[in-house]
Amino acid sequence: MSTSSLLDKYLAVRQRTETICGPLQKEDYVVQPVVDVSPPKWHIGHTTWFFETFLLKEHAMGYKEYDPNYNYVFNSYYETVGARVIRTDRGNLSRPTVDDVYKYRKYVDEAMVKFLSDGYPETLTDTINLGLNHEEQHQELLWTDIKYILGHNPLFPPYDAATKSAGGAVEAGNMMSVSEGLYDIGFEGTGFCFDNELGRHKVYLPGFKIAKELVTNGEYLTFINAGGYRDFRFWHAEGWDWVKSNAVQCPMYWHLVNGGWQHFTLRGLEPLDEAGTLNHISFYEAAAFAAWKGMRLPTEFEWEIAAPQLNWGTRWEWTESAYLPYPGFSKAPGAIGEYNGKFMVNQKVLRGASEVTSPGHSRITYRNFFHPQLRWQYTGIRLAQ
Amino acid sequence: MSTSSLLDKYLAVRQRTETICGPLQKEDYVVQPVVDVSPPKWHIGHTTWFFETFLLKEHAMGYKEYDPNYNYVFNSYYETVGARVIRTDRGNLSRPTVDDVYKYRKYVDEAMVKFLSDGYPETLTDTINLGLNHEEQHQELLWTDIKYILGHNPLFPPYDAATKSAGGAVEAGNMMSVSEGLYDIGFEGTGFCFDNELGRHKVYLPGFKIAKELVTNGEYLTFINAGGYRDFRFWHAEGWDWVKSNAVQCPMYWHLVNGGWQHFTLRGLEPLDEAGTLNHISFYEAAAFAAWKGMRLPTEFEWEIAAPQLNWGTRWEWTESAYLPYPGFSKAPGAIGEYNGKFMVNQKVLRGASEVTSPGHSRITYRNFFHPQLRWQYTGIRLAQ
Amino acid sequence: MSTSSLLDKYLAVRQRTETICGPLQKEDYVVQPVVDVSPPKWHIGHTTWFFETFLLKEHAMGYKEYDPNYNYVFNSYYETVGARVIRTDRGNLSRPTVDDVYKYRKYVDEAMVKFLSDGYPETLTDTINLGLNHEEQHQELLWTDIKYILGHNPLFPPYDAATKSAGGAVEAGNMMSVSEGLYDIGFEGTGFCFDNELGRHKVYLPGFKIAKELVTNGEYLTFINAGGYRDFRFWHAEGWDWVKSNAVQCPMYWHLVNGGWQHFTLRGLEPLDEAGTLNHISFYEAAAFAAWKGMRLPTEFEWEIAAPQLNWGTRWEWTESAYLPYPGFSKAPGAIGEYNGKFMVNQKVLRGASEVTSPGHSRITYRNFFHPQLRWQYTGIRLAQ
Amino acid sequence: MSTSSLLDKYLAVRQRTETICGPLQKEDYVVQPVVDVSPPKWHIGHTTWFFETFLLKEHAMGYKEYDPNYNYVFNSYYETVGARVIRTDRGNLSRPTVDDVYKYRKYVDEAMVKFLSDGYPETLTDTINLGLNHEEQHQELLWTDIKYILGHNPLFPPYDAATKSAGGAVEAGNMMSVSEGLYDIGFEGTGFCFDNELGRHKVYLPGFKIAKELVTNGEYLTFINAGGYRDFRFWHAEGWDWVKSNAVQCPMYWHLVNGGWQHFTLRGLEPLDEAGTLNHISFYEAAAFAAWKGMRLPTEFEWEIAAPQLNWGTRWEWTESAYLPYPGFSKAPGAIGEYNGKFMVNQKVLRGASEVTSPGHSRITYRNFFHPQLRWQYTGIRLAQ
Repeated sequence: MSTSSLLDKYLAVRQRTETICGPLQKEDYVVQPVVDVSPPKWHIGHTTWFFETFLLKEHAMGYKEYDPNYNYVFNSYYETVGARVIRTDRGNLSRPTVDDVYKYRKYVDEAMVKFLSDGYPETLTDTINLGLNHEEQHQELLWTDIKYILGHNPLFPPYDAATKSAGGAVEAGNMMSVSEGLYDIGFEGTGFCFDNELGRHKVYLPGFKIAKELVTNGEYLTFINAGGYRDFRFWHAEGWDWVKSNAVQCPMYWHLVNGGWQHFTLRGLEPLDEAGTLNHISFYEAAAFAAWKGMRLPTEFEWEIAAPQLNWGTRWEWTESAYLPYPGFSKAPGAIGEYNGKFMVNQKVLRGASEVTSPGHSRITYRNFFHPQLRWQYTGIRLAQ
Repeated sequence: MSTSSLLDKYLAVRQRTETICGPLQKEDYVVQPVVDVSPPKWHIGHTTWFFETFLLKEHAMGYKEYDPNYNYVFNSYYETVGARVIRTDRGNLSRPTVDDVYKYRKYVDEAMVKFLSDGYPETLTDTINLGLNHEEQHQELLWTDIKYILGHNPLFPPYDAATKSAGGAVEAGNMMSVSEGLYDIGFEGTGFCFDNELGRHKVYLPGFKIAKELVTNGEYLTFINAGGYRDFRFWHAEGWDWVKSNAVQCPMYWHLVNGGWQHFTLRGLEPLDEAGTLNHISFYEAAAFAAWKGMRLPTEFEWEIAAPQLNWGTRWEWTESAYLPYPGFSKAPGAIGEYNGKFMVNQKVLRGASEVTSPGHSRITYRNFFHPQLRWQYTGIRLAQ
Repeated sequence: MSTSSLLDKYLAVRQRTETICGPLQKEDYVVQPVVDVSPPKWHIGHTTWFFETFLLKEHAMGYKEYDPNYNYVFNSYYETVGARVIRTDRGNLSRPTVDDVYKYRKYVDEAMVKFLSDGYPETLTDTINLGLNHEEQHQELLWTDIKYILGHNPLFPPYDAATKSAGGAVEAGNMMSVSEGLYDIGFEGTGFCFDNELGRHKVYLPGFKIAKELVTNGEYLTFINAGGYRDFRFWHAEGWDWVKSNAVQCPMYWHLVNGGWQHFTLRGLEPLDEAGTLNHISFYEAAAFAAWKGMRLPTEFEWEIAAPQLNWGTRWEWTESAYLPYPGFSKAPGAIGEYNGKFMVNQKVLRGASEVTSPGHSRITYRNFFHPQLRWQYTGIRLAQ
Repeated sequence: MSTSSLLDKYLAVRQRTETICGPLQKEDYVVQPVVDVSPPKWHIGHTTWFFETFLLKEHAMGYKEYDPNYNYVFNSYYETVGARVIRTDRGNLSRPTVDDVYKYRKYVDEAMVKFLSDGYPETLTDTINLGLNHEEQHQELLWTDIKYILGHNPLFPPYDAATKSAGGAVEAGNMMSVSEGLYDIGFEGTGFCFDNELGRHKVYLPGFKIAKELVTNGEYLTFINAGGYRDFRFWHAEGWDWVKSNAVQCPMYWHLVNGGWQHFTLRGLEPLDEAGTLNHISFYEAAAFAAWKGMRLPTEFEWEIAAPQLNWGTRWEWTESAYLPYPGFSKAPGAIGEYNGKFMVNQKVLRGASEVTSPGHSRITYRNFFHPQLRWQYTGIRLAQ
C-alpha cells in the first residue's frame, strides 16, 4: 500500500470510530456495567494509545509522550508495556474526562499524520496495518458495548431511532453438501491478516452438509416454546449449569412484556421480529439448539471451505472448533506477540462477520474467538450435519 | 418555623448541594467505584425524589409526577415505595444524564417553592424538615463520595486547589474527668431531631476521663511505626481478619511514596500533615489504637455528657457503643419509619460532626452510625479511660 | 475448692464429654458441614489441648508434650500460641484419627490426674476452673454440632431414639412488671465466672414488662402463617437481606413434608410439637417476631434483673443488647486474655441457658454471644415491652 | 467375552477397588478437601450404584433395591436419574457409614454374581463392560484422591511406606520424526472402548517431531530456577492469572523445606527425585514449560500416530488438543449418553495412561480429559515441535 493510501486509510478508520460515538451523551462514555463491556471513552483512548506506544514513541523522531499516566490507564492486556488498570476498574474512572481523551486523540492523530506524511520505514507497514485492524475490532466492540450500556438501562434509551438492521433472514431449510477431501486452510495472499490465520495447511474433511442461511428469531422461538431451556439433554454440562445459575430463558436483549416478546435494538425496545436473524446467543445456546434440531454446529474448517457458497456477514457464527494455534504458529516477539496466541485456551472460534463489523475488515480466513458463555457480540447460528 | 423562613431554608439547603458539585466534571457524577459510594448525580436525584415522593405527590394539589421511571432509579432503600435500582448498579447507569437530573431537580424545586409559598398544612412541617435534614446528610456524603472518586483515580485529580482543611489539632494529652452519676441522655427541646435521638432517658455512668482533643496524624504514625498493624493483641478478632484480608497498613488515603508518607486531600496528593487531625479510619483501627495506648473509646453516653467541654466538630468520633434503640423507641408508620430503626444491628455509633458536615446540621444528641470497617467518612479518634 | 473436689470435678467434666459422643459413629466425628460447626473429634482434641497447653506444658514438672503437631491441629483462635488450622479446614482432616485423638485425650488425662493429685500452686485454680468451664461450653457445642451433622444428612439419622426434650412450654401471655430504678449488674461472689461478667456496676432501667415464659412453636407458626417472612416491615434491613438471599421461610430444622410441618430432633424427624418451646431461630427472626407482636426483646440488663422471677433454662434467649465490655473491663495478659474481649463487636448477647447446657454451668450473670444470623444453637424468644 | 470370563473380570475389578482402599483408616474415607476430590467411600458407593441402577434395577428379575435414598447419595452427574447430592456436599455426609457402604457393595455384588451366572441378554454386555471400565476410572481417581487427602494433611501420613514409584525417567533429549501424511484416528476393533473414541476418521498431519521420553523433575526444576513462574511471556493469559491468583511456584505436592525441595509421595514426604518423571502439573504449566523450551505440546492426533514408538504409561500427557467430538459422534440415548459428550467444551485432552491407571484399562486411542488448571491427577509433559 502506498504511503498516501495508508494515510487515507488511517484518517478514514479514525474518523469512523468517532462517527460511531456521535449519538452518545458524555455519561454513556463512562460506565462499565459488566466486566466484558468497556466504557466507550476507554476504547477511544486505548486505540489511540496503541499508535502512540507502538509507533510514535518508538519510531517518530522528536515525539513527546502526551501523558505518561495514560499508559497506565489505556493499556489493555499487554503485560510487556507495564502496569495497567485492572479491567473491572475501568468503569470507576471519571478522569481523564471525555474531552481530555479526545484531546489526547487529536494530539496523537496530528503526530500520526505527520509521521505517515513524512515517510516512514517500510518495515513499519505491518504495525500500522495492525493498528488499523485493531481499531476496526474496537469499532465493533464500541457497537456492542454501547448497545449493552443502553440496553441494560431501565429507561431503554435508543442509540439512534433511524438505525437500520440487516435485512430479514430466510428460513434455514436449505442445506448444501460438501464432499470429503483434503482442503487448504488459512490465509494466503499479500494483504493484511492476523497471525492466527497464518500457516496455510491441509485439513482432511469427511463429507458434510451445511445450511446456506442463518437461524431466524422465529425458529429459535420454537425451541424456546418447546421447552429447550428446561431440558438438560440438549446442553453441555457447563451450559446447563450456566442456564440454571443465571436463570437464562431467552437470548440477551429479549424481554417478555405482557405476554409478548420484545427485543432491544439500537432503535430502542421493539416487538420481536420473527423473520429477522437470531442474535446475541451464547455457544451453549447455539449447541443446544443444534442438538434439539438433531444437527450440530460446523467446524471452523468446514465453514472456511463452504463459505464462498454461503450467505454470511450479519452475525458471527459459533463453530464447534476450539481456538487453537495452526500448525507452525509462533508468537511475534515483544508486546505485539501478545495479540492472539496467549488466548488460545478455553475459547471457541467464531467465523464470518456481523452487521456491525467494520466494512472491509473481515475475510473468509478470519478467526474471531470468545468464551462460550458470552452473548453481547452479534452472534448467530448456522447448522451443519 | 414560619413559612417564609422554611422556604428560605429550603432554597439555601438545595443551593448548597449544587455548590458542592460546582467543581465536578460531568464524568465525576457518574461513577461508583465501591458499593458504599454513590454517583453524585444519584445524590442530586435522590434528594429531589424525596421531596417529590413524600410531599408533592401526596400533598401538592395538581402536581404532575416528572417521570414514573425516576422512582425506580432514585429510590434508595425504602421498600415501601416500590422497586429500586440495586445499590451496586447505580454506577452502571449513564441515563438519566446529568443534565436530565438537573432538569428534574429544577422542576421539583419550582413545585416546592410554589407549595411552600402557597401555604401548606402545619402537620407537614416535620416532613419538610426531615427532607432538609436528609439532604444535609447527603451533602456530607457528596463530600466523602467525591473525595473517594477522585482519591481512587490514578491521576489523583484535585477537587479544588483552594480548599481549606480544618485547623491543626492539639496533642491529645489533656484529659478531663467526669464524675459518676445519673445523667439524662437524648434530645430535648423544640427544634428538629431524628427519631433515633428521641426518648430522653436516664443513664448511670461510672466516673471516667475523656480527652479534650482528637488524635493527630503524628500520634497515629507512632502507632504504625511501633508495628500496630502487625500485632494481633490490639485488635478485635474481626478487625484482625479485616487487616489481614485487606492488607491494611495505614488509614485510607495515605500513600507511602518513595519512603515518605503522603495523603490525598481535596487539594490533591500532599505530604502528610503530622500536626493535622487523623482522618479516615475504621472503628477497628480506632479501637486498636486505643488499646495500644492502654485506653479505650468513650461510650456514646459519656461523649454526650462531656461534649460541652470538648473540642469537637472536625471528625465523626467512633464510640464503643453499638447502634441500638433508646428505651421506648418506636418506628414511624410507613416509609418514613424506615429512616433509622431498621439499621439498628451490627453498626457502631459515631458522635460529633465533621468539617464536611453541613453547617447547623449537628447536635450534641446526634447519633451517626456506620459499619465498623468503613473509612470513607471523615472519622477520627477520641480517647477515654 | 479443695484439691480432691477439683479432681472429682475434672473427672466428671471430662467423662461427660465422652458420654455425649457415645452414640456417634466414627464418621460422625470427622465432618464439618458448615464453617460454624466443628467436627466432634476436633472438640475432643481441642478441650484436651487446652489443659495440655495452659497447665501441663507450663506447670507440670517433667511433662512431655504428646505431639507438637497437635498444637497446630487443635488450637482454635489463640493467636498467641502459634499457627492454627484455618477453621474451614477442620473438616478436611482425616488424621489424626478418632482413635488417635482418644489416645491423646487419655495421655493428657493421666497427666492431669497426677498433676491434680500431687498438689499444684493455689494460683492455678482459676486456670483449671477456666479449662473445665471451657470444656462445658464445648459440651454444648458438641450437642449442637452433632445435631447439625445428623439433621443436615439426607438420611436424617437419629442421635438416640430415647432422648428426652425439655417439657412443653406454657403460652407466653403472662407478663410481669419491673419498676424503674438503679440496679446492680454483673457477677458478685466467690465462685467461677468469665471475665466478661466482671465489673459489677450500676445500670438505670426505666420500668418494663417481661414475659414469664418463652414463645412456643405454635405461636411462631401463627407468625409464619400470617406472612411474617414476606413482610419487610418487621425486619431489620440486614435481616431482610438475610431472609431473601437465603430464602428463609421457617426456623432451622423445620421441614414442610406433604403439607405438614415436621422438625428434626435428636430422635430423628418428628411432627412439629406446637406446644413445645420454639428453638433454633436467629436474632433477626426473634426481633421480627417481637415487632409483629408489637413488642420487643429485653435488654440483657432487664433480663438479669427479672431472671429470679422467670422460667428460664431451655433456650438461650436473644436480647436486644450488643456484646460490649462492662465498665472497667480489661483483658487478661497472654493467650487466656483472648477468651472473650476480642469478640466484643457485631455480636448479640444471649442470656439464660439451654436444655443442652452442661448442668451447673450457667448463672444469672452469664453472657453468651453469637452473630445475629446464627441458628444452630438452642435459641428462643422472650418478649418484653 | 464369555459369561464366565465376564464374571471373572467383574470379580477382579471389584476386588481391586477394595484392595486400593486397604491401607485407609475409616476417617480417610469421609473427607473432601476440595471439590474435585471425592471421599473414598463415595467412590465405593458410586461404582456400586452404577451396577445397581443400570443393570440390576432394570434387568435383574426380582431384584430389590437396597435403599432408595442411596440413589440420591451416590448419583454423580446423571441428570436423568434424579436428584443428586451436590458435589461440594459429599464431604459433609457422615452417613451412610463406611460399614454401611461396604454392606451395600456386598449386597449388590451378590446380586451381580447371580445375574452374571444365571445368564443375561447378550445386549447387556456393553453396559456391563461400561460399568467395569467406569469402575477402573474410579480406581485411578481413588489413587489420586487418597493422595490428595493424605498429602494435604499437615501430618503428611504415608499411604503405604512400601509403595513403589514407576522407574526413573530418561532425559527427554531424544526426538523422533514423523512425516506428513493422511492418518487414521480413532478406535478400531472389537474390544471395549468409550464412545468418544469412536468414528475412526482421517486426519492430515504435517511432519512433526516428538520426544520419546517425558520431562523429568530435574528438567522442570531448571525451568523454576530460571524464573519460569515469574515471566508472563511463557504463559497463556488464563494461565498467568491462575499463577498469580493462586501464587503457584511449583508443581502440586512439592515443598521447599529449609531450602531443599521435597515432594509428597504415597510413602510420605521425601527429597525430590530429580531423575524421576515430573508429576502433578496443570496444562498451563505444561504449555509454559514447552514455550520456555522453544517447543510445544503434541496434538492428540500426533500422539496417537507416534504412540507405538514412544515410552508412555507413567503419566497422563497434556496435549494441545481441546476435547471435542470426532466426526459423526452422537450421544447414546438415556443416562448412559451422559457419559462423555456433555463434557466436550473447555477441557483439554490427555493421552497415554499413568502408573495408577488400572492394568489393561488404557489404549492408544483412549481420550482422557480435564480442565486445564487441574493437577491432582498423575500428569506430565511430552514435548513436540
